[in-house]
Amino acid sequence: MSSASTQTDTQWKGYAVHDTEHWDQLKLIDFQPKKFGDYDIDVKIEYCGVCGSDVHTVTGGWGKPLLPVIPGHEITGRVIRVGPKVTEFKVGDRAGVGAQVCSCFECTLCKTDNENYCPSSVDTYNAKYPNGDMAYGGYSTAIRAHERFVFPIPQELALEQASPMLCAGLTVYSPLVRNGAGPGKKVGVVGIGGLGHFAIQFAKALGAEVVAFSHSPNKEKDAYELGADKFVLTNDKAFSKDYQGKLDIIICTTDVSKGIPLGDLLSTLTIAGRLIMVALPDDDLPAIKSMQMAKNAALFGGSHIGSKKEALAMLDLAVKKGVKSHIEILSMKEAGKALRNVKENNIRYRHVLKMDI
Amino acid sequence: MSSASTQTDTQWKGYAVHDTEHWDQLKLIDFQPKKFGDYDIDVKIEYCGVCGSDVHTVTGGWGKPLLPVIPGHEITGRVIRVGPKVTEFKVGDRAGVGAQVCSCFECTLCKTDNENYCPSSVDTYNAKYPNGDMAYGGYSTAIRAHERFVFPIPQELALEQASPMLCAGLTVYSPLVRNGAGPGKKVGVVGIGGLGHFAIQFAKALGAEVVAFSHSPNKEKDAYELGADKFVLTNDKAFSKDYQGKLDIIICTTDVSKGIPLGDLLSTLTIAGRLIMVALPDDDLPAIKSMQMAKNAALFGGSHIGSKKEALAMLDLAVKKGVKSHIEILSMKEAGKALRNVKENNIRYRHVLKMDI
Repeated sequence: MSSASTQTDTQWKGYAVHDTEHWDQLKLIDFQPKKFGDYDIDVKIEYCGVCGSDVHTVTGGWGKPLLPVIPGHEITGRVIRVGPKVTEFKVGDRAGVGAQVCSCFECTLCKTDNENYCPSSVDTYNAKYPNGDMAYGGYSTAIRAHERFVFPIPQELALEQASPMLCAGLTVYSPLVRNGAGPGKKVGVVGIGGLGHFAIQFAKALGAEVVAFSHSPNKEKDAYELGADKFVLTNDKAFSKDYQGKLDIIICTTDVSKGIPLGDLLSTLTIAGRLIMVALPDDDLPAIKSMQMAKNAALFGGSHIGSKKEALAMLDLAVKKGVKSHIEILSMKEAGKALRNVKENNIRYRHVLKMDI
Repeated sequence: MSSASTQTDTQWKGYAVHDTEHWDQLKLIDFQPKKFGDYDIDVKIEYCGVCGSDVHTVTGGWGKPLLPVIPGHEITGRVIRVGPKVTEFKVGDRAGVGAQVCSCFECTLCKTDNENYCPSSVDTYNAKYPNGDMAYGGYSTAIRAHERFVFPIPQELALEQASPMLCAGLTVYSPLVRNGAGPGKKVGVVGIGGLGHFAIQFAKALGAEVVAFSHSPNKEKDAYELGADKFVLTNDKAFSKDYQGKLDIIICTTDVSKGIPLGDLLSTLTIAGRLIMVALPDDDLPAIKSMQMAKNAALFGGSHIGSKKEALAMLDLAVKKGVKSHIEILSMKEAGKALRNVKENNIRYRHVLKMDI
């Protein structure tokens, strides 16, 4: 096994946030990865996407983080070490890691391709393993994870293209599939950004008819280019009128609660249609009345990334249908600028950081 | 046809609320029923249940009503007149009317046993027909409705027993069936009252395991007698701990928003489990964060009464499994007292008014 030789060469360095007040001022630090296990894989990182979750975490919007935080969970690179029980990868393989690096492997959820809902799930960063080891993310030289949470990247996809799919892509792909998006179904996508630009493409790739909702008139051209069949401006108070009872599924990617016209969106669902929130705004969602869900038996729900099985199917579909990540690449040392652009909604549609350490 | 002779004999008198300030002071008035149509049936009323909806309407909680209002939509009695195109009923039949008296009959929803979600639905009272005729409810001598909205009452059910099932029973039965309640499923019922006492019984009758949630320790005995497998007091802050990820469906009957521990209840759902609000509180539901639905892909939804098909199946199940309406009968002239008892949650579990006009 070639892992023994590369093991000692591996640097463990990353760009870390040290306090939530100065969340865009990252400093390069050395860090200690988790203890190496029999099923673990080390991936030398080439690219890491910048996710809205990174911003929520480092700004403290989701609560006080475990500082210092090395963010990043849209990771791609090459395998440099595999544990003795790893079967799916060998050194040199193209590989990726998303927003989860561990689960219990034993519960019903882990055994039914729902490991993303395992109560003992370990996030890729700002998290602790059960043994107390810290999990550090992908704004760094390398990542270590159990093979269950490492995804092979198809040859047809450039690593920088695959990176943002591993969280943003999967976060919309999973609820689309689980809620039945496909031929004959009408899917609404609310918000055209990092998540939304994937939701439009994947809903279309799955064969659904897609209606894009945005409050920005200047997103119309993009929406159609991404594959939307219709574009609806939500600025107009009467925007939902034409769609009463029409949509089977809505994927809502809006990350600021007060910007979500929840009652109007719910009214556009078919009977027992589903509005799935994939964004996780810091604050409470808009309040609604029971009556607003009663008139069409609307269902309003959540979703959390996706399973490995879904990740592989998503990457396969991306290759087959030509789904593209719309990205702007920055050097990894510019992580702070990238985070600021995401927070200020100033990127179309995803930053990817390129290794520079 | 015997309808011609009985037609002229029919009195149209009912107990009406004249202003929302004095909602419990009903006065007997004459009223004009809708114009008789070819598919219409007149039912001479013997009993009418008193529903939470009656209170919401006459107090103005759901908005200003079309006064005067004759409430009541849990109606049973005998057919006294049938239109020339009626096929399902003849004069003398035992019959009931629930919370809906008309729909468009033409839309996809009407044609797929979803007439209860038809956008042109006409409520049994406090509503207008498309031609402008007013709809008056069952605190009255007689009701006229299209045969689609008249239900035959099985011989095995006393009319006073059937009455509360036609709104309260159907309101919980429909979402139970539509969301898959049955053998192998765990159903939570929140609130043990007019709706909840049916939800426990029907969930059990459908073969599910039932967990009853209440903030009243003095409902425990009733919960078990109604068939609950477990009783959980929601007063204890940690009430949801033992049920994390366990329940497939929750039927929430709590009619006061601030009394609903929504986040805790959502945490008890299985992956993609559903919490269905069947009560329609006047005010906004408690605010939640996206995160509270994300961790188990919880779905939170609504429901609106049920279809005729479901009503017939429910009555059949009630007969087969011995589902009982727990009622206290008052003379119809005591409607104001009954409404007050419902508002003050002072009845176990349903008032039924007996004809006295």
